Amino acid sequence: MADIVLCECFARDGLQHEPVFVPTALKIELIDMFTAAGFPRIEATSYSHPGQVPAFRDASDVLAGINMRPGTFYKATCPNLRAVDRALANTAVDRGASEFSLLVSATESHTARNLHTNRAKQWQNVADMCARAGGLVRLVGVISVAFGCPFEGKVDQGEVIDDVAHFVELGARHITLGDTTGLATPRTVATLFKRLTEEVPDAVPIAHFHDTRGTGLANCLAALDAGCTHFDSSFGGVGGHPAEIEYGTGYTGNVATEDLFNLFEEIGVSTGLNPDLVLAASRRCEAILGRQLRSSVARAGYGMKLMERHHV
Amino acid sequence: MADIVLCECFARDGLQHEPVFVPTALKIELIDMFTAAGFPRIEATSYSHPGQVPAFRDASDVLAGINMRPGTFYKATCPNLRAVDRALANTAVDRGASEFSLLVSATESHTARNLHTNRAKQWQNVADMCARAGGLVRLVGVISVAFGCPFEGKVDQGEVIDDVAHFVELGARHITLGDTTGLATPRTVATLFKRLTEEVPDAVPIAHFHDTRGTGLANCLAALDAGCTHFDSSFGGVGGHPAEIEYGTGYTGNVATEDLFNLFEEIGVSTGLNPDLVLAASRRCEAILGRQLRSSVARAGYGMKLMERHHV
Repeated sequence: MADIVLCECFARDGLQHEPVFVPTALKIELIDMFTAAGFPRIEATSYSHPGQVPAFRDASDVLAGINMRPGTFYKATCPNLRAVDRALANTAVDRGASEFSLLVSATESHTARNLHTNRAKQWQNVADMCARAGGLVRLVGVISVAFGCPFEGKVDQGEVIDDVAHFVELGARHITLGDTTGLATPRTVATLFKRLTEEVPDAVPIAHFHDTRGTGLANCLAALDAGCTHFDSSFGGVGGHPAEIEYGTGYTGNVATEDLFNLFEEIGVSTGLNPDLVLAASRRCEAILGRQLRSSVARAGYGMKLMERHHV
Repeated sequence: MADIVLCECFARDGLQHEPVFVPTALKIELIDMFTAAGFPRIEATSYSHPGQVPAFRDASDVLAGINMRPGTFYKATCPNLRAVDRALANTAVDRGASEFSLLVSATESHTARNLHTNRAKQWQNVADMCARAGGLVRLVGVISVAFGCPFEGKVDQGEVIDDVAHFVELGARHITLGDTTGLATPRTVATLFKRLTEEVPDAVPIAHFHDTRGTGLANCLAALDAGCTHFDSSFGGVGGHPAEIEYGTGYTGNVATEDLFNLFEEIGVSTGLNPDLVLAASRRCEAILGRQLRSSVARAGYGMKLMERHHV
C-alpha cells in the first residue's frame, strides 16, 4: 500500500510546450509505460482547442489507444465548456479520461495575462464545467500562482484557501496548488498545507511545484511533512510554465519524477512505483524528446534503498 | 547579524577538477569578490602537491594577493605534514590562510580508494598535522562519505560521531560532514546533526552536501532545522566529487551558492550577504569558466524577498 499518490504529468504538462509534435503512437506507448510503472494518476492529454494547442489535437485518439488499468486515474485538461463536451463525448465507464482538470489563477493579473479573462468570469466558466461534468468524472481544480505571482508578488493564503473551498463546493475535492513561477518556499508551503488540512478538511490538496529556483524537492518534502499526500511531477522535469519565454525569468519546469520518487523512497515513503520501470520510462522520455532532460537521478542512479531494489 | 555562516568553496573545491588552469590574477579577483559579497568563510586554495594538483600550484601567490577582510576566514586544504609546513611558511597574523582543512574518510574502502591509505594511518597523519598547526590557525576537520559510501553503502552514524569527537580532541572544533556521492537524505541529515548537537556539543558541524540526486537544498534545510549553522556551497555548484569520472555515477557537484543563499533569505534566515554582489560574483564565475553553471537562481533571479533588495 502506497503512502502517497504521484501523478505523472509528462504526457500533458510535459508535452504542452514542446516545439515538436509527439506522434500519437509514442504518447500511447509512454502512458502505457507510466501505467505499468504504477502511477495511480496520469495526466494523459488536454482538450484545449486543437488549433491553439496542436500538441493535443489527438486527445481522443490517445485516450482510446492507451491500456487503462482499473483504479488508475487518467486526466484530461479542460479549459472551457466546449472542451468538457468534447471530452465527455469520448468518455464512458471503461474509456476516456477519468479526471478533468479545471483551472483558475489566484490573482487578477495572472488571470488576465494567462487566461485572458477576469477571475469572476473564470469562476463562472469553472462552475459551468463542473455542472456539466460533475458525477460523470472526477473533477480536479487547479489554482495557479498559488504561492506567489510574477506580476503581483505575494499571494494572500486566505484567498487561496477560499478558492480551494470554492472548488470543493463545486464538486472538485481534489485541488492542485500550483507554484507557477517557483516562488514557494518550504515555509510558505508548510503553512498553506497545514491551513488547508484544518480549514478545508474535505479537500484533497495536490502539490505541484516548479523547480525554478532549485527548491522543488525541498517544497515537496515540506508539503509531505505538512500532511500532503498527492504530488505532481514529470519525467525529466519537462513542462511547467514557459516563463523563460513569457517573462524571461529562466527555467520554470516541473519537479523531476525520477528525483521525487527517489527522495520519497529513500526516506521510507512508499510510492507504490516499480523502480526498474520508472527508470525505463525515464530513458524512453529522453529518447523520444531526443535530448538529456533535467533529472539528476537519471544520471546518478538511485540512492541506497532503491539501489537494492533496482535490477536493470 | 547573520543567522548562519556560509563558506564559498568555488576557488578551491570548485576549481580542483576543472581541466583548465585558472590564472592566479583571476582567482584573486574572484576571492576578492567573495569577500566583498560578505562570505564569512572562503575556501581559498590547497597546499596539495603542485605536481599532483597543478590547479593550486599558485597557492601562496593567491593567498598573498587577495584583500583579506578582518574576521573572514580563508581556508587552505592541507593533505599532509609537508602541505602544512608549506602553508605555515606563508602564514602570519595578517596574511596567509586562517583555516587549514584536514580530511578523513568515514569508511576504509573510500580511504583506500581516495586517500590511498587506511583510516588508522590517516588519523595519525591528521594528528601530526594538528600538532604542527594547532594554535597557529583554525583547524577544520573534514569527514567524507559521512552519509553513505559508494563502496560500502550505509555508514554507521555512531562511527561518524566518534570521528567528530576525535577531531575535537585533536583541536579541530569545526568539522565538515561531507556527503561525497549524494547519498544523504533529509532524514539521515536531521538525525546526524541532532545527535551531534547532543553528543559532541563542543563541535561546530558544517554541512557539505553534493547535489547528486537533486536533494542538496532539501538536505541543507534539514540540517538547518536540526540546528546546523555552517554550510558549504560553491557558485554554480562547481566542484564536488568527480564521481562522473571515477564511478560513472553522474554529476556529484556542490550545492549552488546562489540557490542556497536564495532559499535561506526567502525563508527569513539571514546570511549577511549582499544580493547584488552575490549575483555579480555568480556572473563572473560563469564568465571565467566560460560556460553556464548549475545555479537555477542565476537563470531565474531571486525569489520575492531578495527581489526587493536586489538593485542591479
